[in-house]
Amino acid sequence: MKQLINTSGQIRQQLLAGLTYTYNDKLNWQPETGIVTKKVINEQKVVLISGGGCGHEPAHVGYIGDNMLDCAVMGTIFEPPSSSEILQAIEQTYNGRGTLLIIKNFEKDVTCFLEAERLAKEKGLHISHVIVDDDCSIESGTFEKRRRGVAGTVFVHKILGAAAAEGKTLGELQTLGETLIPLIKTLGVAFSPASPIGMIPQQYTLAEDEMYFGIGIHGEPGYRIEKMQSSERIAIELVNKLTQQYTKSELKNTAVLVNGLGGTPLLELGIFMNDVQQLLEIEDIPVTYKQIGNFLTAYNTNGLSLTLLNLKDDQWLNYLKLPTDAFGWK
Amino acid sequence: MKQLINTSGQIRQQLLAGLTYTYNDKLNWQPETGIVTKKVINEQKVVLISGGGCGHEPAHVGYIGDNMLDCAVMGTIFEPPSSSEILQAIEQTYNGRGTLLIIKNFEKDVTCFLEAERLAKEKGLHISHVIVDDDCSIESGTFEKRRRGVAGTVFVHKILGAAAAEGKTLGELQTLGETLIPLIKTLGVAFSPASPIGMIPQQYTLAEDEMYFGIGIHGEPGYRIEKMQSSERIAIELVNKLTQQYTKSELKNTAVLVNGLGGTPLLELGIFMNDVQQLLEIEDIPVTYKQIGNFLTAYNTNGLSLTLLNLKDDQWLNYLKLPTDAFGWK
Repeated sequence: MKQLINTSGQIRQQLLAGLTYTYNDKLNWQPETGIVTKKVINEQKVVLISGGGCGHEPAHVGYIGDNMLDCAVMGTIFEPPSSSEILQAIEQTYNGRGTLLIIKNFEKDVTCFLEAERLAKEKGLHISHVIVDDDCSIESGTFEKRRRGVAGTVFVHKILGAAAAEGKTLGELQTLGETLIPLIKTLGVAFSPASPIGMIPQQYTLAEDEMYFGIGIHGEPGYRIEKMQSSERIAIELVNKLTQQYTKSELKNTAVLVNGLGGTPLLELGIFMNDVQQLLEIEDIPVTYKQIGNFLTAYNTNGLSLTLLNLKDDQWLNYLKLPTDAFGWK
Repeated sequence: MKQLINTSGQIRQQLLAGLTYTYNDKLNWQPETGIVTKKVINEQKVVLISGGGCGHEPAHVGYIGDNMLDCAVMGTIFEPPSSSEILQAIEQTYNGRGTLLIIKNFEKDVTCFLEAERLAKEKGLHISHVIVDDDCSIESGTFEKRRRGVAGTVFVHKILGAAAAEGKTLGELQTLGETLIPLIKTLGVAFSPASPIGMIPQQYTLAEDEMYFGIGIHGEPGYRIEKMQSSERIAIELVNKLTQQYTKSELKNTAVLVNGLGGTPLLELGIFMNDVQQLLEIEDIPVTYKQIGNFLTAYNTNGLSLTLLNLKDDQWLNYLKLPTDAFGWK
């Protein structure tokens, strides 16, 4: 797989330069850092910060905007930013209303973000966090749940972002996040792994007729390799595994996200969405909100993930629907 | 390259079902056809219709919305819709204000759309068309300009769409289109061709270290195969070839579109945009509008195109910036 880059050591720098040049009416970037902020930070609301490694575009820079994030702190490819850079972002965007960190549940990410939170607290800042762990993949040997933070993180950005804009306090947002996150479930499948990039080697290979269920967003292996199947058969696997995570009564008001992993064309995501729709209709699961596209990618992985969210509170649907100027969300 | 489809004969049907299910608050689709319309057709403005083969998603269904298209007529993969289906779309959306067809300059597309226009005229309908031919690629043997209609078509959708919403007449829109289109220039490059899909075979192959300048959006060959280069070197080739199409004074107010061809991750488009920006700055070419993403794809082609537009009339910039609910445009 050929790659359109320059030198791998400059990926973060050049990527953030390109994206913030494109959206320089909305975004501020501090060159040489991974810190991108909303052009104008609202002084009257809690500040929302997320981030992680590069390679997940449009996440997380694409979610900075009204009713979403105020700041994204990006590390190098598939590596979280340093705690000192996260602390710098916290301090620079601090407005006295409090700051909420939205963290994807990967060990390195959690370590860096929580260390930054600890340092910020030492400085007397009002700060808290939520950890997103929507991935339903399991370890193939132990059946242990992996609980990584993956595409469902985007639902957290939008719902907490809109709730923050509405004026909720830091404590209220944390409680909302902790109620919301267990109701988000995601499962992914890869047809071809991400190419090696930067310091990140390829962690698995697939034969020409194979696919891998349960892969991660940094090229991590999944739980089962199978022969490549039709879109409908793949939808059956993902829909079944995900709906099993809920009781029947929890699926009365559901949001669906079909997320491309970077190398999958919208044509295929559209066909897959049609199969998902039909399966959910057969199972009498009403869907009130849908999204399709590349939201949280794994560099150039050919594959996709499916996310379900139980919209337990009707207000969450309103939060999802509120418009935003964040470039990654339509 | 593995493909996420079901049976190839059902691609159009299942793709349009999936997309219009996702956006059923905005779009109406007539099952078994390729006709997708805006949920509510404005009776007070000229109707804008575009279309072509499937495989270019989000084009053209993703451009139906306020300040853009009213209707898209989609054929099977890389094949235009039949003239009878285009005629059906024209009649169904007709509101007496006139209808403008936006056609990409491919022989089959032009034939089908102009035949539909002829039939509509016979029925006494007020209808006209513009043909987009922004591609600057040349035949490798004859140096003849190919003038295909490619990613720049999206600029035509947006500018004419906003002008139509403003109340311009059919004649005014046609004149605007004919002024605008010669000022749009596009050039593409592929790193890997689209996989064979449906009845469409692969038209060229590339070695592991090769790329192809000047390729088309249906897997057509380009004008020169070279060894794969850095993003910056590729940007130099495309920017040079495109800026040569304009006089220096024409590039005082420029719009830039970096378009992924379906299999290229946003990370790479972002790095490429940074290189384009630096080259345009060195050449003192001011850019007042930028877009980055997958706008007019070639199924799962790994590659991109660059489009420049001379914003000769300041009003065009306003048209580009007007918001739309079309899902393919942010």
